[in-house]
Amino acid sequence: MCQLLGMNANKPASIKFSFEGFVLRGGRTDEHRDGWGLAFFEGHACRTLHDCRPSADSPLVEHLHRHPVKSRNIIAHIRKATQGGLSLQNCHPFTRELWGQHWAFAHNGNLKNFDLRLSGRYLPVGETDSEHAFCYLLQELGHRFGALAPTTPELFEALVELSARVAAFGPFNFLLSNGSGLFAYCTTELHFVTRCYPFASVRVLDHDLQVDFGRYNHLDDCMSVIATKPLTSGEDWTAFAPGELRYFFDGAPTRKGVLRRQLAVSV
Amino acid sequence: MCQLLGMNANKPASIKFSFEGFVLRGGRTDEHRDGWGLAFFEGHACRTLHDCRPSADSPLVEHLHRHPVKSRNIIAHIRKATQGGLSLQNCHPFTRELWGQHWAFAHNGNLKNFDLRLSGRYLPVGETDSEHAFCYLLQELGHRFGALAPTTPELFEALVELSARVAAFGPFNFLLSNGSGLFAYCTTELHFVTRCYPFASVRVLDHDLQVDFGRYNHLDDCMSVIATKPLTSGEDWTAFAPGELRYFFDGAPTRKGVLRRQLAVSV
Repeated sequence: MCQLLGMNANKPASIKFSFEGFVLRGGRTDEHRDGWGLAFFEGHACRTLHDCRPSADSPLVEHLHRHPVKSRNIIAHIRKATQGGLSLQNCHPFTRELWGQHWAFAHNGNLKNFDLRLSGRYLPVGETDSEHAFCYLLQELGHRFGALAPTTPELFEALVELSARVAAFGPFNFLLSNGSGLFAYCTTELHFVTRCYPFASVRVLDHDLQVDFGRYNHLDDCMSVIATKPLTSGEDWTAFAPGELRYFFDGAPTRKGVLRRQLAVSV
Repeated sequence: MCQLLGMNANKPASIKFSFEGFVLRGGRTDEHRDGWGLAFFEGHACRTLHDCRPSADSPLVEHLHRHPVKSRNIIAHIRKATQGGLSLQNCHPFTRELWGQHWAFAHNGNLKNFDLRLSGRYLPVGETDSEHAFCYLLQELGHRFGALAPTTPELFEALVELSARVAAFGPFNFLLSNGSGLFAYCTTELHFVTRCYPFASVRVLDHDLQVDFGRYNHLDDCMSVIATKPLTSGEDWTAFAPGELRYFFDGAPTRKGVLRRQLAVSV
């Protein structure tokens, strides 16, 4: 399985401390050695970095230490391969365009015998269940809403339903962003924390480092960090409920929902 | 207007010397100061680097000097903005997926009042005529061939026709690749050179540097470099004819064509 890290903020922000702890899990403090990737938005543009090497030893990670990324929406992923070989085209986050917006997606989980049909509008380049699922989500959103982007509530409602459809095939925790906000869906394991004034002093777990966020933030800064497992102690991480989708905007969790299934009643 | 640089090779190769001269045109030896970009393929994956700053002063270019890219297909672009603001989403190369393949595209030219209709399958994220034209080409290819990739001859023939349709709106020189081969189309200015054994000793024009390619290549290496203006002296650059599309594969120009227009005869 893999691990996810996401960030949504009200102003372009760095995830330096979270990211530095996170990447150590890619081969140092944990076993996710099969590549890593990062997607971050600058305006409407989406930039991505991928590497097949373990993130703990990657020269590109070293480059990011020297030139930290600042963005309002970031998705990072470290990989422990379950489906698909160790190649760059299988490294998350995956990106596609829909409604004239770039979308980035990363998945933690394992979809077995996943066979929801792709019509051809979006097709996977690699061999992962994850990219297949991403193509399926965008295909269905495109099919449902046509060429015009829906409102956030409409989009949220559609994603709750489509995500549950995919999750019938296995664990399906994902992060998805179009650079405006960030969607996070959980079936088995996902946590988030929101950092606003007054900022806490926390311990970065994998780094064994104490950080006083009050020293690094302005009074009006606000950000949420979403991760498979909590990255710090000394602040309150909230666990997602199974089947829960949340939408983060301007640094805060603004919307959450679970699909209420209609029980089939046999007479 | 902008400048284009492309490379197609039979083995993953570096364009260090060509690129180093090329980027100097982004603000030092020429006026293309409005950003630059690079797309290169590794296996089926496509990596991109973009910067809004002049390439001659970009820290990312400095990073590329230290970690040179090796690839069988590379597309680079330096921008002098004609349409669309100075933002990252307007920097070439643009990328999209079609037939489960990543496609990268960069354009030199200026399409005036370009209004060929986009149905919504591909929509521009930025404001350039170039991204609009790229979306149009892929939309029409998808429309014509469906979900299955055509053969190279079929694709070539379709691109000759579609490119001419776009070129009716203005200068339309472009590079296009799916990581397998590289298409290059010219209406006003484009040149290429093919480097195979015996390799020449050439002068890199913008760098004022003498390079003996025999020292950097194996006997069986073969590559073609395509550029708006020749980058070297001491080797034979071929000018594209107006309206000419060429396809480069395994380092060599393997196919060329011009649309033969049916003249309307009035009786």
